[in-house]
Amino acid sequence: MSTKPYKDFEPQWITTPPVEKSYRSIMKWGDPAAYKRPKEGLYKLIKKQFNLTDDDFKQMADVGNEVVDIKVPSHLSDKQLAELKAIVGDDNVTTDEFKRLQVGYGKTMIDIMRLRKGIVENLPDAVVYPSTTEDMEKLVEFAKKNKVHIYVYAGGSSVTRGTECMIVPNMILDLRKNFNKVIAFNEVNQTITVQPGISGPDLEKILNEAPENFGAAHRLTCGHFPQSFEYSCVGGWVVTRGSGQNSTYYGCAADLVLCQEYVTPVGRIRTDSAPRKATGPNIDQIMMGSEGTFGILTEVTLKVFKLSAKHRKFSYMFPTWEDGMAAMREVMQGEFGYPSVFRLSDAEETDMMMHMYGIADSPLNALLSAKGFKPSKRCLLLGFADGEDGLQRNIVKNIRKIAHKYNAMSLTGYVTTSWEHGRFSDPYMRDTIQDYGIIIDTLECAVNWDNMAQVHEDVRKVVKAWPNAICTTHISHCYPQGANLYFIFVIKTTDLDAFKKYHSTILEAIMKSGAALSHHHGIGKLFAPFLPGSIGEEQMNLLKALKHYFDPDGLMNPGGTLGLDKHPDNF
Amino acid sequence: MSTKPYKDFEPQWITTPPVEKSYRSIMKWGDPAAYKRPKEGLYKLIKKQFNLTDDDFKQMADVGNEVVDIKVPSHLSDKQLAELKAIVGDDNVTTDEFKRLQVGYGKTMIDIMRLRKGIVENLPDAVVYPSTTEDMEKLVEFAKKNKVHIYVYAGGSSVTRGTECMIVPNMILDLRKNFNKVIAFNEVNQTITVQPGISGPDLEKILNEAPENFGAAHRLTCGHFPQSFEYSCVGGWVVTRGSGQNSTYYGCAADLVLCQEYVTPVGRIRTDSAPRKATGPNIDQIMMGSEGTFGILTEVTLKVFKLSAKHRKFSYMFPTWEDGMAAMREVMQGEFGYPSVFRLSDAEETDMMMHMYGIADSPLNALLSAKGFKPSKRCLLLGFADGEDGLQRNIVKNIRKIAHKYNAMSLTGYVTTSWEHGRFSDPYMRDTIQDYGIIIDTLECAVNWDNMAQVHEDVRKVVKAWPNAICTTHISHCYPQGANLYFIFVIKTTDLDAFKKYHSTILEAIMKSGAALSHHHGIGKLFAPFLPGSIGEEQMNLLKALKHYFDPDGLMNPGGTLGLDKHPDNF
Repeated sequence: MSTKPYKDFEPQWITTPPVEKSYRSIMKWGDPAAYKRPKEGLYKLIKKQFNLTDDDFKQMADVGNEVVDIKVPSHLSDKQLAELKAIVGDDNVTTDEFKRLQVGYGKTMIDIMRLRKGIVENLPDAVVYPSTTEDMEKLVEFAKKNKVHIYVYAGGSSVTRGTECMIVPNMILDLRKNFNKVIAFNEVNQTITVQPGISGPDLEKILNEAPENFGAAHRLTCGHFPQSFEYSCVGGWVVTRGSGQNSTYYGCAADLVLCQEYVTPVGRIRTDSAPRKATGPNIDQIMMGSEGTFGILTEVTLKVFKLSAKHRKFSYMFPTWEDGMAAMREVMQGEFGYPSVFRLSDAEETDMMMHMYGIADSPLNALLSAKGFKPSKRCLLLGFADGEDGLQRNIVKNIRKIAHKYNAMSLTGYVTTSWEHGRFSDPYMRDTIQDYGIIIDTLECAVNWDNMAQVHEDVRKVVKAWPNAICTTHISHCYPQGANLYFIFVIKTTDLDAFKKYHSTILEAIMKSGAALSHHHGIGKLFAPFLPGSIGEEQMNLLKALKHYFDPDGLMNPGGTLGLDKHPDNF
Repeated sequence: MSTKPYKDFEPQWITTPPVEKSYRSIMKWGDPAAYKRPKEGLYKLIKKQFNLTDDDFKQMADVGNEVVDIKVPSHLSDKQLAELKAIVGDDNVTTDEFKRLQVGYGKTMIDIMRLRKGIVENLPDAVVYPSTTEDMEKLVEFAKKNKVHIYVYAGGSSVTRGTECMIVPNMILDLRKNFNKVIAFNEVNQTITVQPGISGPDLEKILNEAPENFGAAHRLTCGHFPQSFEYSCVGGWVVTRGSGQNSTYYGCAADLVLCQEYVTPVGRIRTDSAPRKATGPNIDQIMMGSEGTFGILTEVTLKVFKLSAKHRKFSYMFPTWEDGMAAMREVMQGEFGYPSVFRLSDAEETDMMMHMYGIADSPLNALLSAKGFKPSKRCLLLGFADGEDGLQRNIVKNIRKIAHKYNAMSLTGYVTTSWEHGRFSDPYMRDTIQDYGIIIDTLECAVNWDNMAQVHEDVRKVVKAWPNAICTTHISHCYPQGANLYFIFVIKTTDLDAFKKYHSTILEAIMKSGAALSHHHGIGKLFAPFLPGSIGEEQMNLLKALKHYFDPDGLMNPGGTLGLDKHPDNF
């Protein structure tokens, strides 16, 4: 994707698609033919940070290009498999090992590391491709009768071991093949009803082309663009309470959902489409976040938006992190409307971005330094506004005013454009660099403004405890009362156990910091051990009571999800 | 309050405060010394509608000015009362009949009718005034040990028999005396933490005076102004999921709540203040709407807003209901920001308002008719914008554009100002008119745009089935996907049973129409029989499972609330 040749030595990045049916073909992010390598400035930064030389980039680590050749018998009997085929059709059940491994893991770093090393754990017993809600009801009845555990896979972009099949016998329902249809479009209410296996880009294309597809008067958008957008599905957005990068304006998945249908062991739950109501506890909000432990999401109605013809970009350099945070908070409490993307990088991330976008080596860098915006102090704020043009204009005008109050310098829209170009393709770089044993991973949490600086300091300290760790942080997904704090860490290791332990220390630091354990990644099985410490025993007991109500036999995504039962690995 | 003398005969309205310790002193809305009578035009309209003459306004109906003189023994033993006094102090427990009746009913029309007739039902056994969360924990322990049922009273403005003490033995916790304190103010996060017995005006005054009270940089507002504002409390807003008249901009109570604490029979639940999270089902959203059936709200942290220096008003006359609705929807889907108050009256309400605001008799009326805005067709849209000035300007500009597109005529801000003057005092008129046997009551529901016209037609038909009923309707509390539809009905009766039956037919019509049973009044005991028909058996079972978890002995607000158990009257 980045094509400018290096001036000096350049490693032999893997630019070819993964070997067919290899571990790499499963683990690699996105389009098999696409890859992304760091720009030369970033490569040099990495070498410097980790005390490496070009020689270290001549030997590859595990790249996982071996063909998957395993024999793992299914725990389901032939009779059971025949029953499943009777429900969904012969072509929609498979026990083929490669296909099972394809949906066995998500995109958690632990998953990637296991696949690179050819470690097969928790292989699902069968992959099933249902088509209809009726299929789902029959599958749940089958599961109850046969005590077969149910896992659900859609985009597979979980970073929490959310879909991993811990308990046997089981089946995993892959929604991408048949459970991905548009059920209804409602122009008057501005909603679309879909099956949860529809992917982000498919949904967005259908909405962008609403005039052609539905005779609608306007082009529309779903407003939800997580970094995993290209390979995530609506179902995952909803059941984990995800957020897109534009959530400051459009809201998180939980805001976008108008109503839903779930198939649970105690029956089908279908909420109504009233825009708001005072009819007891909010049942949509009970189901969202249940991460497959109460039942299977089978239908969701999303609020959609008019597609903005253009969006207004801005970026500012602040002298310090404190100035940037104060400005950001003032914007969010300014009541002039919210920008769509709104993101403040800390000093380390700012320096990194200066390298990624080629600014570190440009005359602009000298100008910034001359004006007192010093490396390892200065912080970059970027974003853009969506919505009607007058709203956008008013937002960027007020942001400019506030930025100047805090002594920021405008960098025009250039930086924002660079960020936009990389927003969905940056994950590709993670694979390329990891081929040389360098890991990029992320963790995030939700924080109030009055605790933001402290959480940043506390968690960063733990991340930095790994020798030579790079830790870049940004604030994004903002609210008047706080925001998401997002940590990206880069370390050099291929040691799975050491990594797991390190990862846990960061989660523990988040838990202890007073931040919420996750703003939008969810909990899954990996974060669950820290959930009781985060929300407390009383809330855990309530979640367990709900679990017991919906799923008394413990059939739905069992093995530690949300800490509602135990799995051998984490407990 | 309205002082312009009638030209012709004027009834002898009761303008004096209720007799001390009378039924009327309990039932009368608001300030004892204040009253509101209809303007002459409205009085004439009422006479015409109900085929009445001035003679009908010479004989009063039941006005309830008799002194309460009843003997109703408490079901609590002296030992139990002593235990209660040991918890909250001697002065904070009473079995005095008048004080018990004062908190025995809410402001449901059925309550008013009973008090006018001196009908005492379901008198609480004792009134208790707790001060702290620790008091609450001890009271709940006492209740568990003694099998005493707990009811909670704060503002007492329920219109759903929400707080009525159906099951004995019981105690009612009146929060207004001691449980009304500010616990914390956080300027950085822009939040205030209060006990739920604080009243709307007390909270608003404290926030308006934030610079004086807390040294804050800005004057603030809670943004929540239900019609009952002056006599409602924060606790009621939250546990019933109320909405203020400005909710289109500020959000409903459920949006304003950042976190909460409840004391329940299974312990204290305290949520954290993260602005948003992906850590499982949303527990705040389980507790809000539980209407006292899971536990007692003891603390709530509210998001607050900068007080707008001014707000921009608008009002438009539309040729038809359909035009007004189309414009309203276009505004809500226009993505230029939301107005704060936003309200479209149907033709009957518009005609009524023309009388109330004295426009029916003014030259403006002639001009409107000449321009084709015909009575019984034309519909009035009014509102104002809050927030930063640029946002306000952009909103009213876009509303003007859309109004003109749908052939509306601007009426300037005059009508909106008239509405504002009456927004909190109109409930006073209900008492004045009822002294002559004419009832004003309201019901409301939440509706999607594509079903709005149909629900309006269906429900209106049932309201109109009462002979000569006046039925005025408006749309308010708007969203991109729909809005609240609010019915005000005026009928002539003093027959309690006939009224109950009539009220039920309207609730049934709402239930059958596809609207949600309530947008912001809540469910209580009065609406509960229709909840299963509205949300379905599966959702009712889930609510019952939650009830069973929190309150296995059925001690918390029992007797039909939310349909979680039965009360003799309704089932």
